[in-house]
Order: sequence, then structure tokens, then C-alpha cells
Amino acid sequence: MSPLPFRSASLAPFFAPNGVAIIGASRDPSKLSYGVVRNLVDPERGYPGPIYPINPKADEILGLKCYPDIAAAPDPVELAVLIIPASAVAGAVEACGQRGIKAAIVISGGFREVGAAGAAREREMVAIAERYGMRIMGPNGIGVIDTHTPLNTTFVKGMPPQGNIAFLSQSGALCGGIIDWTIGRGIGFSRFLSVGNEADVNETDVIPFLAADESSKVITLYLEDVKGGPAFVDALRAAAAVKPVLAIKTGRTAGGQAATASHTGALAGVHAAFRAACKQTGVIEVESVQALFNGALALAYQPLPGGNRIAIVTNAGGPAALAADALEPAGLRLARTGAEAQATLRSFLIPDAQVAGPVDLLGGADEHGYGKALAAVLADPACDGVLAVLVPQALVNAVAVVEAFGAAAAAQTGSQKPVLACLMGEASLDAAFAAAHAAHIPAYTFPEDAVAAFGALWQRARRMQARHGDTETRGHGDAEALADHTLARAKARRETQQAILLARAAGRKALDAAESRPLLEAYGVPTPAEFLATSPHEAAAFAARIGFPVALKLISPEILHKSDIGGVILNVTDEAAASAGFDTIIARAQAAHPGAHVRGVQVQQMVSGGQEVIVGVKRDPTFGPLVMFGLGGVYVEALADVSFRLAPLTSADAEEMIDEVRSAKLLAGLRGAPPADRAALVEAIVRVGRLAADHEEITELDINPLLVLPVGQGVLAVDVRIILA
Amino acid sequence: MSPLPFRSASLAPFFAPNGVAIIGASRDPSKLSYGVVRNLVDPERGYPGPIYPINPKADEILGLKCYPDIAAAPDPVELAVLIIPASAVAGAVEACGQRGIKAAIVISGGFREVGAAGAAREREMVAIAERYGMRIMGPNGIGVIDTHTPLNTTFVKGMPPQGNIAFLSQSGALCGGIIDWTIGRGIGFSRFLSVGNEADVNETDVIPFLAADESSKVITLYLEDVKGGPAFVDALRAAAAVKPVLAIKTGRTAGGQAATASHTGALAGVHAAFRAACKQTGVIEVESVQALFNGALALAYQPLPGGNRIAIVTNAGGPAALAADALEPAGLRLARTGAEAQATLRSFLIPDAQVAGPVDLLGGADEHGYGKALAAVLADPACDGVLAVLVPQALVNAVAVVEAFGAAAAAQTGSQKPVLACLMGEASLDAAFAAAHAAHIPAYTFPEDAVAAFGALWQRARRMQARHGDTETRGHGDAEALADHTLARAKARRETQQAILLARAAGRKALDAAESRPLLEAYGVPTPAEFLATSPHEAAAFAARIGFPVALKLISPEILHKSDIGGVILNVTDEAAASAGFDTIIARAQAAHPGAHVRGVQVQQMVSGGQEVIVGVKRDPTFGPLVMFGLGGVYVEALADVSFRLAPLTSADAEEMIDEVRSAKLLAGLRGAPPADRAALVEAIVRVGRLAADHEEITELDINPLLVLPVGQGVLAVDVRIILA
Repeated sequence: MSPLPFRSASLAPFFAPNGVAIIGASRDPSKLSYGVVRNLVDPERGYPGPIYPINPKADEILGLKCYPDIAAAPDPVELAVLIIPASAVAGAVEACGQRGIKAAIVISGGFREVGAAGAAREREMVAIAERYGMRIMGPNGIGVIDTHTPLNTTFVKGMPPQGNIAFLSQSGALCGGIIDWTIGRGIGFSRFLSVGNEADVNETDVIPFLAADESSKVITLYLEDVKGGPAFVDALRAAAAVKPVLAIKTGRTAGGQAATASHTGALAGVHAAFRAACKQTGVIEVESVQALFNGALALAYQPLPGGNRIAIVTNAGGPAALAADALEPAGLRLARTGAEAQATLRSFLIPDAQVAGPVDLLGGADEHGYGKALAAVLADPACDGVLAVLVPQALVNAVAVVEAFGAAAAAQTGSQKPVLACLMGEASLDAAFAAAHAAHIPAYTFPEDAVAAFGALWQRARRMQARHGDTETRGHGDAEALADHTLARAKARRETQQAILLARAAGRKALDAAESRPLLEAYGVPTPAEFLATSPHEAAAFAARIGFPVALKLISPEILHKSDIGGVILNVTDEAAASAGFDTIIARAQAAHPGAHVRGVQVQQMVSGGQEVIVGVKRDPTFGPLVMFGLGGVYVEALADVSFRLAPLTSADAEEMIDEVRSAKLLAGLRGAPPADRAALVEAIVRVGRLAADHEEITELDINPLLVLPVGQGVLAVDVRIILA
Repeated sequence: MSPLPFRSASLAPFFAPNGVAIIGASRDPSKLSYGVVRNLVDPERGYPGPIYPINPKADEILGLKCYPDIAAAPDPVELAVLIIPASAVAGAVEACGQRGIKAAIVISGGFREVGAAGAAREREMVAIAERYGMRIMGPNGIGVIDTHTPLNTTFVKGMPPQGNIAFLSQSGALCGGIIDWTIGRGIGFSRFLSVGNEADVNETDVIPFLAADESSKVITLYLEDVKGGPAFVDALRAAAAVKPVLAIKTGRTAGGQAATASHTGALAGVHAAFRAACKQTGVIEVESVQALFNGALALAYQPLPGGNRIAIVTNAGGPAALAADALEPAGLRLARTGAEAQATLRSFLIPDAQVAGPVDLLGGADEHGYGKALAAVLADPACDGVLAVLVPQALVNAVAVVEAFGAAAAAQTGSQKPVLACLMGEASLDAAFAAAHAAHIPAYTFPEDAVAAFGALWQRARRMQARHGDTETRGHGDAEALADHTLARAKARRETQQAILLARAAGRKALDAAESRPLLEAYGVPTPAEFLATSPHEAAAFAARIGFPVALKLISPEILHKSDIGGVILNVTDEAAASAGFDTIIARAQAAHPGAHVRGVQVQQMVSGGQEVIVGVKRDPTFGPLVMFGLGGVYVEALADVSFRLAPLTSADAEEMIDEVRSAKLLAGLRGAPPADRAALVEAIVRVGRLAADHEEITELDINPLLVLPVGQGVLAVDVRIILA
């Protein structure tokens, strides 16, 4: 990894400071600030360095000497935790700066989250910190837990077990619930932090820091509102390249959106850009907090599978059937036991046991049976990972069985396969869950959850396999190559910029097909031959030059939906019809929109055959240009069968976009139609992404339809509209 | 409700017997049969009636007198539990019969599940029982728990709490896990049973019995393999009419199916029929065991909501955001707090609290704040139900808060709204979960689970609303009416039967369009005017009689996919072309399939306009005829955008089928097309269902396309194929 940028490297004192001061520490156990001191001095897992409570009215708190102000606290002190009224924070930050402290956690609320006055207070605080080169985490967050230092600056009761999962939360209030649940479940963390209002330190700073942390094997993120999309996406990409990242983001189904002027705009929901960012960076997006940590547990403790064939070893058919049903939706398959492994299993199992898959040892199975069965299945080349299911039985020692899971997993020779456990029950299984943790076997109560965790392992494994085979073309690499070498990108940018300036100068925001075409051509997206006719005579002459049949299309900046008023005539087969068609279209335009400015009638090469698709762009306020792909017409309008990626995108991204669209099967050539030119489509999607990424002024773009011709014949952007900012 | 059928009424001794004998009771605590006696004599929740262990080698077990055989056991004894080697079961059942016992639970394994010899033993056992009018539950099941009797004939350690959820499992091995989990969670049951191999008592017998049981408010089903589909569907329908039924069935994603000869056959996966049965009967199908009981808990203890607007009252924004995201996929909406309720909330909440929805009381909220907020929200006409979220806070008494949930729910005046709780945590929340149970407030750890449970409440509420407004047309009612009055059903049946007999007599299984058409017409599904021409001259004459344009289609029993060989010519506009077309088609048929039997060329009215759809039937081996609907062509082939219902179906079922298909939006008339005749389509689907239900010989049927013409113009079955058994 390259060295950390300053904004990330400077976070070290938040997690492993040499000396901590608590400004506003209270002696009153009903105060939150008392809780902070209590967590810091905890006899078992307290902070091992010097702790300085700051409180002018107290001499001592929880056995620690108290200081009247931060200036009075002796060296060393690297981190200040502020838990005082909002109005006092600025002064305290100033004092910290003068004392030479470079890191402050502001737990206090009463800032931006309460309105304009609070926002002003927040700006003042940041300005002071900047003067001293001090980093601020918060305000309005609960601070930091580092289980390895150990350090716990929160006021939340209890501290999660040590482990190797890092967690960043944009909600402080959620953290108490997570800590309480993970203590109950024994889920261990390395670093756990709540970034609050992100007045200074934000997720884009923290992610590279966690990516570089050797004690964190997995990063988990709870996000509500991401700022600075492109830098955030870069941070995600870099982090996911070195360790698994799982994320959940709220606001997935938020209702009302602003009205938009394009299909792409209408279809790109509030969540499309974040989802695209996850796909492009290899972040595993989940939709529940439980799935976040269930998946993290598997990724933290088990190796990645080499394939998606999961063997199930069980003492009960029911949970195995439930697990088997959950496999397919998670992208997995049930392993069919190989012949050699079946023979091994048969050699020691009772005759009624099932060995083909799921391997059902039946209710009497004990630790010896499980141990031998797991060993046989793990050695089976037909298996990529094992889900070991145990339903408690009166006469079976669940702890011993779980220990056998751990022993079998540890005894693997050669390539390591993951083992997850489903311990189906609760009342009698506390000790068995504890044994699973001790053996680093992730254990779940329900088969469906265990399978979902396997799904996360497989998603990560696939990503790593794809990167391995494809390192040259992922990332920005091939988009840049395309742009620089094939497109003569500088020229493309210049030409496009000129067209945009021209439109702007004319006070135009919506560019029609005639105006948009040069932009596409500059970026190498082919368009049909066409000319703008301003008289019936010109229409006939241009049609003759292009060759029949041609299409005639109204061009008026004031009439965007030209089909609706009869402004399009297709299949014009001779010069007389072209001339008459011109008059018809002009007459219809005047009837529908009297007085509308009409630029003329576009005479366009008629292209037949091929598959209509739509390629569009919408600029997301956070993440920048979002490229959409879908099949044209009703597939987009009635089915919303579309996919999204952020621009710039790679050809691998474009391939994935096409594969995600169900109706894209039509491109393969159903019902005797010839297969469409997919390679040209991929290239066009990449080029449209480059166009959008190069020109911030483009807020929406619809190529509808882009005609994908049969293999070898390329694509044609038949109609296009561009909306400028 | 009508009186229970005998097969259900005779189940009473399984749940509330007067005297229980345990045949094979052991004194050895390591034997399962010891566990059965242990559960029966449990000092706290043991069976209160007489218990007779039967064991010739023992005098006494767990303080009970032992008898050498069942004949020796004194009166009363109504239920025998057999847990002896399979080979001894037949003799013991005979002895029970002679002793006058009418109910026996056979826990022993070694029957059908182990192969042919076991299956023979099972048949022998059932034959003996039938002679004595004795009912058998099992073999190879774990028996019965009735928490109200109380009675526990299983060997599983622990007994679930008393409650009002009934549970039937087709997997015995799963039950131990469920019991262990539900004890841990405090989920209460009324009756809990494992039906084992279902040699006699099966789910179709048990469901009406549970439906009639006043101690069971909700029925939950774990199913693996349903037998006797139609009777089972009737049982589900009757049960779901009186109480909520939730079901999970494994085998949802089972792979390889037998090859089929129609689109409908290919698209009807193994699970389509069960899913259709749930939809048509109002059973709530879930996809995980956790969802089964999470939903049951809500339905058991809370009233149904009057609408889908769910208010969230929380002390933390994060879980509320997660809950809000989960609403839409569950068919719910976030309630926007009404003006009056907002004012009430403002009157006592701190200024930073959020009142519009979600109602965020912030971290300091205690039981008083929660209580008043819940009261305000429950009284708000803009709210149909409340999700109360609590993240544990160091200074907040979680038990008191949960008690406030219960008090607010109980204090409602007027119509009752449901209250569910999300208690987000684990380590510190045991007492709070217990308090929620005591107050009958269903409580979940994660917001997503709580919302899914709300989804089950709303699904049930919608079903009850629909039934209320629509009692006349649901059920078999309107299909019968249609058949009897509109179709002259007897005549239709007779005509169809004749056509089928004719085809059979000719040794034919696949009926072509010309042969299938009379069957559709008999059932009132319109077909285009058409004649079978056997010469060019006839083709021209028929075409003239129908009126131009016409279509020409090859009719050959040996060439099913006629389009593939050019056996269809459309838009024939005059007699000469009809004559020539005849020759062309015959020549193509002979070129492609030399020597194939050709019946002639069908001359058919060309219909243009309208929307192509497909209506098909596939006979499910368990559930009988399954009707499919989808849009024609690529929508079916590439997108599999189809829906299913069991025949016979109602017009309400057909309406739902259409609404489930995403591309059916096209029927409304997109892009300037006129709206299609949906009413005629609904009628056609109902009639096809009736045709399939009336004629068992029809195993597959495809009307492809069925042309749905503009409103008022009806439908036309343009092409049809029928496959006979």
C-alpha cells in the first residue's frame, strides 16, 4: 500500500494516544461524562496510559487526580475527549490547541444537528482546530473504541470483545445497540467508532486508516449520508483491494425525488449511485445490520472458498433443507459429495445416513461422527466450503461437537476451505456458541443466516478471483486508455466544451439531437448520417444524399417530446415524400405549439434491424455521473429493467451492467434474430461514461434509442438529448 | 365453522387424552424413551392424567408403576406412545387395538424412510390400525406437545412456554432446534406436533383440527412434501378463513426438473403450485424459520392494522432509518405524523426531538416520554400501527420503557392498533424482552425483523379486508357460476371429452391448433375464424370466405414448432397468394421433415392490433392444474415474467395474476396504444382454468398468443397446443 494521506495518518492518536484528557469529567454517576471515565479506568480492559479528568470543581474522580483545566494536565497528553455544553466547546478546543493536543473527540451535541446557530458553532470550532493543526472527531458522536490499545472513550456500558472487525458508524445512537448485541453474541471488534457530525474527520479519512490497520481484518460501515462521493469511492476501492469491506446504507427506499427531464433521471433512485459504487469497488452491500456482522464474522475468521459448492453436514434434515433452499439466492450451489468421499462416509456412518449431499448423520451423531464426516467432506474436491449444522439432541454433547468442527477446520492440509456453523437453538446452546467462538468457527442460529454469510465469503472470493485475472483492465485503467489513445481525448474534450459553450451562450439547457450529436461523435459514439433541413427542398436533397429510406424529425428547442405531436415520420422512401413530410411536420408543430421556435427538420439515415437500447447519464449530487443501461422502449418504461455504474467506468463494468439487465438476453439473438454487437455496445457505454466524467456541465443525457446492430456492424445513437446544468 | 370431518375430529385423543401409555419406556436415562416419561411426569408442566409405562423388564420408572404389556394397563388409557424397534411396532399396534386404544404416536424410525422393507412394515402397521379404527401419528416423528393439557410425548429436553401459536412440522429433527430456540426467546405454543412419515395422520387432517382449536390463534407450518394437494388446499383455505396461517416449505429452489413440452411447463418451477395455493387461500408464505415465528408472534398478540401507515417511535435515529428502509419491501409506508399529534408531541418533548416521523425522542427518553409519545401516536388518525424502538441507554430503565409500551397499547380506546417493539441489543436486555412478553408486545432485536412482522400483520389485514368486500366472488363461487350459466358447462365437458377421446383413439398426445380449438370454444374462449385447407384451391376459397388478410399455418402432428421451418405465412392479401402460400408451406414441410404426415394448411383470420399474451396450464403432480399468465414472446422467453394460480380460479385470482406480471402494464396502453380488454382477458383465464380443472387428461396447454384486443373487442386465441396424459 502507498503511504497514508495526512488526513488519514493523523488519526493515529484517536486510537492509540499517549495520554487522554476528559474535559468535563463528572463525579456524578448519572452523567454521561462519568461513564467515559468509568470505561477508561475499567480494571479489566481500561486504557493503560495516563488519564486526566478535567473538572475545576473536583479533586478526584474514580481514584484519578482531577485537573482544573487542560493547561494544568501534565505530559504526555495526545487525545482530548470533550463532553461539555456546546457553548463551551470552542474555548476548550482553543485551550487544547495551545496545550499542543492534536486530536479531540467532541461527544457534546448542540451543533449542526440543531440548526443554524449550532452550525455556526461547529464552523467556529473547526476553524480554531485548523489553526492548531488539530483533528476533531464529532461533534455529536460517541467516540472511539480500540480493543487492542485498549481504549474506550464512549459512555456506553460494556465493551465489545477483542476481535478483528472494524466498525464505523454515522449514527452514534445506533452504537449502544450494536455494542449490547455484539457483547451478547461474542462478536469481537478491533476498532469501533462513531464519527458524529463529521465536522472534520469523516468516513473518507477513516476508511484508509482502517484499511492500513493490521488488527482489522474486515471493515464494516453503517452509513446514512455520504459526502464527497468521488474521494469516498476512491477510499472504498483502495480499502476493498486489501481487505473485505461490508456496508449498509439507509435511505435505500426514500420516496419523493425531484422531477427529472430524462428516462435515466427518472429511473436513478436515490440509492442507485451508492449501489453502483459498491459494485465497482468490490464493497459487499448488505441490507440489514445482522447481515453486516454475520458476513463480517465469516470474513474475519474463515478462508475464502475457491468455488461456490457448499457441502452441508447435519444431524437433522429440516435445517439442511432450509439451508439448501437459501443457497441459490446467495449465488451458491449444494455440493454433491464425490465418490471417494461418499465411500469414506459410508465406511463409518450408520446405514440410514445420507451421504450424497446434504450429508445427514442423523440425530445420534456425536463429536466423533461429526469430526470424521467434516474431515471427509473438507478433503472432497467436489466441495468448496462446509456448513456444519447441529440441532441440539438430549444425548449429544453440543460443545464437544462444536470443538470437533474447529478441529476438523484446523486439521485441513493443502488449500483451506471455510467452515461455518449453524447451531439451531438458543436455550441450551450458550456453551456451544462460546466454543464456536473460541475455535474461530462463525456460528449462526438459523441456516438462512449461515448461508447468507457464506454468500458474503463467495462474493469476496469472486471479486478477488476477478481482480487476479483482470488487474490490468480494472480501475480507471482502460477508460483512460480508451480516452487517450482511441479517442484523442484532449480534442474530444475541446470540441465538446465548445458545443456546450455555444448552447450556453444561446441560453439553452436542453440540447436536441442535432446539437448533441457532435458531442457523441467527439467521444467516438457513432451516430447515423443526418442533416438539418430548413426547407422542403433541402429535406428532399439531403434525403437523396443519405440514401432512402430516411427518417424526418422535428427539431425545436421548445418541443422536447416530438413523437407526441407527430413530429417524427419514419420510412420516407423518395424525394417527394421527403419534401411533403417536411411541410407536414412543420404544420403539426405549429398546430400543437403555435409560435414555438422551430430550427428545422432533421433528415436522418433510417437504420433497420438491430436491438434498441438506452444508454443514459444522470449526475448524482454526491457521486457524480451515473451511467444507466437498459433495453429501449417498454423494457425501460414498463419494467424499469436497467442497471447503473458510476463514470468513468471500465469495460468490465460495462459488461457487468449488461449482464445485470434481464432483458439483455435479447442481445444474444432470440427467436432467430442475429446476435447483436455486444463489444460495440460495451465500448459505447464506456465512451458515454468518459464524456460525462469529462464534462461536469452535463447533468442528464439519454441516448434513446442506441441501436445495437448485428455483430461486426457496431452501434448507432439514433436519438440523443443532453441536459446542461 | 362446519363440524370437523372424522379424520380431523378423531385427533382429539392425541392432544388431550384420558390416560397415556408409553410402550417401550426405559429406566435408562440415556434412552430416548426415558426422555418421553421424564417429560410426561415433569413436576411443573407434566401430564395431569394417568401415565402407564409399559416395560416387561421393569417394575417402576421415575416413580410410576410399570406394566408388562398394554393389556395389563388399567383404564383409562386413550393414547399410546410407541418407542420400540420397528419390527415390534406391528404387534404393539395390534395389542393397542385389542385394548381399545384409538390413538397411537409411533416415534420409532425404520419405516418408509429406510426403503422398501420399511415401507412394507409401515403398510402392515396402518392396515392393522385401520382394522381397529385406530389413528396413527408417525412413524418417525417426535410426537405431540399440548401446553394447555399439558402433554408432552416427545423426548426433547425442555418444553416451550404456553402460548397460542400452533406448529406442525414435517421434520421431526427440526423440532428440537425450534423448541430450544423458542424457549430461549420465550415464544409460546398451544400445540406443537411432528407428523413424521404421515403413514396415517397427515397435515390435511391436522390443519382443520388446529383451525377449530380455541387455544390456537395462529397456525404455523413447516412443510417439506405435501401430499393430496386439492384436499390440502381446501384445508388451508378453511383454516385461513378463521385464523392466520403462516407456512414455510422447503424445496423452493430445487434444481433439475423433468423436460416439458410447453412454455408453461418450462416456467412452472417445483414451487409454483405451492406458492399459488398460499396466495389463493390467504396463507402467508415465508422464507425462513425466523420469519415464520416472528410473524406468528405479531399475529398472535396484536390486532390487525387498518392500513399500512406505520409510525416509528424511537430513541435513536439509526434503527429508525433501518426500519424505514424495510417498510416499502414489506408493503408498508412510514406514517407522517398528523398536525394534532405533532402539536401534542411538541408540548412535552425536548426541542431537538423529531416529531414528523420517525418520531425521535432522542437518547434521554425515559418511560414517561415513551408512554406519552406512544399515546399521542396511537391516537393519530394518520397512523395504523406503531413500531416502538429502544436502544439501551446507560441511564434509561429498559424494563420500565417496555412496560410503558404495554400500557400505551392497552390504553387505546376505539379501534385497536398494533404495537410491536424493537429492543436493539442483547447483553443487557433480557429483562426488557421478558417484560415485552409479559405485556404481549412482540419484541424483536433488529428493526428489519420487526418490520417484516408488521408486514405479516398487514398481509393478513389486507386479506381480511378483501374477503369482507368480496365474499360472493371468492372461493369456487364465480368459477362455478361462469361454468354453469355462461358456458353450459355440461355441454362443454361433453364436447371436450369427445375431442379428447378422438385424439386418444388416433394415438395422439399432442393436439395441434385445429384439434385444440373446439375445446377452447366449448369453454367460451374465442378463437379466430379458420378452416383447414387440404389443397391450394381450398386455401384460396377459405381465405376469400374469411376475408383478407389471412394467415396460413402448417398443420402436422409431427411438426410441433412450425414457425421454425417456415410453416407460417402471415398477411396473405389475395386468393392467388393464398393458393401459392399453400404450396410453399407444404414444400417447406416436406423439405424439413421428409415423409412427415401433413394434415393440411390452416387458413386463419389475421388479427392485428392488440397485445399478445400467453395463457397456459401445467398439471402439477400434487396440486393439479396450474394456470400461468404472462405477456407473449420475449417477455415470457427472456424475462420469465409470469404468474401462476391453481385451477379452478376466480376472477379475483385472475385479476391478481395479471397485476403480478410486471410487463402487464403494457395492457393499460403505453405509448399511445389503446388500453386492452382486460375484462375479457380475466374471463378467458378463468375459463381456461375451468377447462383444465374439468379434464384431468390435459397435462399441458399453451395459448400462445392469446391476443387481447382493445377494450370492448375481447380476446382471440390465435394459436393453441394441448398435451394429453
